[in-house]
Amino acid sequence: MSAILLDGKACAQVVRAELKEGIQTLAGKGVQPGLAVILVGDNPASASYVASKTKACTELGMLGETLSFPEGVSQDSLLCLVAKLNADARYHGILIQLPLPSHLDSPALLEAIAPEKDVDCLHPHNVGRLLLGRPVFAPCTPAGIIELLVRNGIEVSGKHVVIVGRSNIVGKPLAVMLIQKARGGNSTVTLCHTGSGDLSRYTRMADILVAAMGKAEFIRGEMIKPGAVVVDVGMNRIPDSAKRSGYRLVGDVHFDSAKEVASAITPVPGGVGPMTVTMLVANTVKAATLFAEGQRTHL
Amino acid sequence: MSAILLDGKACAQVVRAELKEGIQTLAGKGVQPGLAVILVGDNPASASYVASKTKACTELGMLGETLSFPEGVSQDSLLCLVAKLNADARYHGILIQLPLPSHLDSPALLEAIAPEKDVDCLHPHNVGRLLLGRPVFAPCTPAGIIELLVRNGIEVSGKHVVIVGRSNIVGKPLAVMLIQKARGGNSTVTLCHTGSGDLSRYTRMADILVAAMGKAEFIRGEMIKPGAVVVDVGMNRIPDSAKRSGYRLVGDVHFDSAKEVASAITPVPGGVGPMTVTMLVANTVKAATLFAEGQRTHL
Repeated sequence: MSAILLDGKACAQVVRAELKEGIQTLAGKGVQPGLAVILVGDNPASASYVASKTKACTELGMLGETLSFPEGVSQDSLLCLVAKLNADARYHGILIQLPLPSHLDSPALLEAIAPEKDVDCLHPHNVGRLLLGRPVFAPCTPAGIIELLVRNGIEVSGKHVVIVGRSNIVGKPLAVMLIQKARGGNSTVTLCHTGSGDLSRYTRMADILVAAMGKAEFIRGEMIKPGAVVVDVGMNRIPDSAKRSGYRLVGDVHFDSAKEVASAITPVPGGVGPMTVTMLVANTVKAATLFAEGQRTHL
Repeated sequence: MSAILLDGKACAQVVRAELKEGIQTLAGKGVQPGLAVILVGDNPASASYVASKTKACTELGMLGETLSFPEGVSQDSLLCLVAKLNADARYHGILIQLPLPSHLDSPALLEAIAPEKDVDCLHPHNVGRLLLGRPVFAPCTPAGIIELLVRNGIEVSGKHVVIVGRSNIVGKPLAVMLIQKARGGNSTVTLCHTGSGDLSRYTRMADILVAAMGKAEFIRGEMIKPGAVVVDVGMNRIPDSAKRSGYRLVGDVHFDSAKEVASAITPVPGGVGPMTVTMLVANTVKAATLFAEGQRTHL
């Protein structure tokens, strides 16, 4: 058996085309959705992610700006910047690219973002509403995964989804979204992690398996139930002298063995990544729409 | 095999004795922890829960007051009351007894409570912090379940916990607490619900099975893995003419068949219930302690 590919790039194009309508409606009201991305330091992976985020915005006629700071920037400077951006009507969304250097207090910075501009959905208020089943924004990677599945005709309702990895960005919020009684939800969810012991015991039960633990090519074919759908959230750079960059990107799934067992699988790159970026754009359009409707106080 | 009983009443007494120390320390600083409970309507179950909550407070030398309102009370009156209680230094904790009559907007009322007084942990801010792994308060029933297990020497780390029921009060926050890398966490968690199809498929895998779906005696012995620990969160009143009250309390677990299969089981009543009330007291003491330390702005 060879799995069908879940093409995130193609799916993202479809979603972006739909978003264009909302952006045009807003333009008619004199509102241009705007996203401000805060980038600290010179990590090349972070810089590349940020570039793809702002580019996705500008390509759709939105404002997408990167505000770059040296590695040594102080907590106070960033808090001051966030306060300014909260008050700046040009920006409906504010994103702080993670991870930040260790001298910075990431939670405090994320909590400083006004919840109505928290398009990355990392403010406790938005995270809490997500768990309580009353989301305003959905976190980008989990939302992108669900969109990718649903738009490829893969029903998640009633399925057993096994998630490996309990990060605040992917594993935990994805579990929380999938168990809700809502579109793109109603799954039975098992969340595994480094404390789970023999992971195969769980991964082999999955109708849909999500690998999000950040270990290159960890999930191999023999850990997958035949016919399962496999979502690979990993983005690991491993040295490769054959590449001009000196590295290649691989996921958390060992693609070659997995594709022989799974019924469908996301590639890396070109799977979850483009969907994540697209959901960020979608959240920014939503923030601008709520702003235009005067619902900023709704949060 | 006959399971050992996990005695919530006895465990609650131990925890309450420990809380007394904190209460005495606060008394030395002139602070008496205070809890205000808002009770709407005349549902006898709600009235009985509220009575046990305020009684637990007063028995420990704390202030515990019930503010009762008729079924028809308006949203605005309650919002106004909550605002007053937020500003009232006598009360460190505010709890709205659920469920509320359908004409009231429960989420809006819960969100009106100042997060630092939200001892029931239902404000989005506190729920979000719980998911993000930075809790201030822990929701009472989930925290009570974990305390009961841990204090009975039942390790949850590395265990497969299967939870049936996805309420905002029990199932969802318990899952969220158990998957954290923290004391009383690090479990692998599966969350099941009405959309899960054949529940036995999941319940039979559980090392620790938590029944929290509100269906009287639904989980029978044959749905339980031999030797599993069974936690029964159900509180169902079923008619019983032999009782003076006309009803008896049963859990979500069919006790007689379950106790022959499980290694340990919570009774109903006298299992999770007393622990829930105790955790509410613990949260109120914590709120008062943070208040005394001048950390109200910490949230």
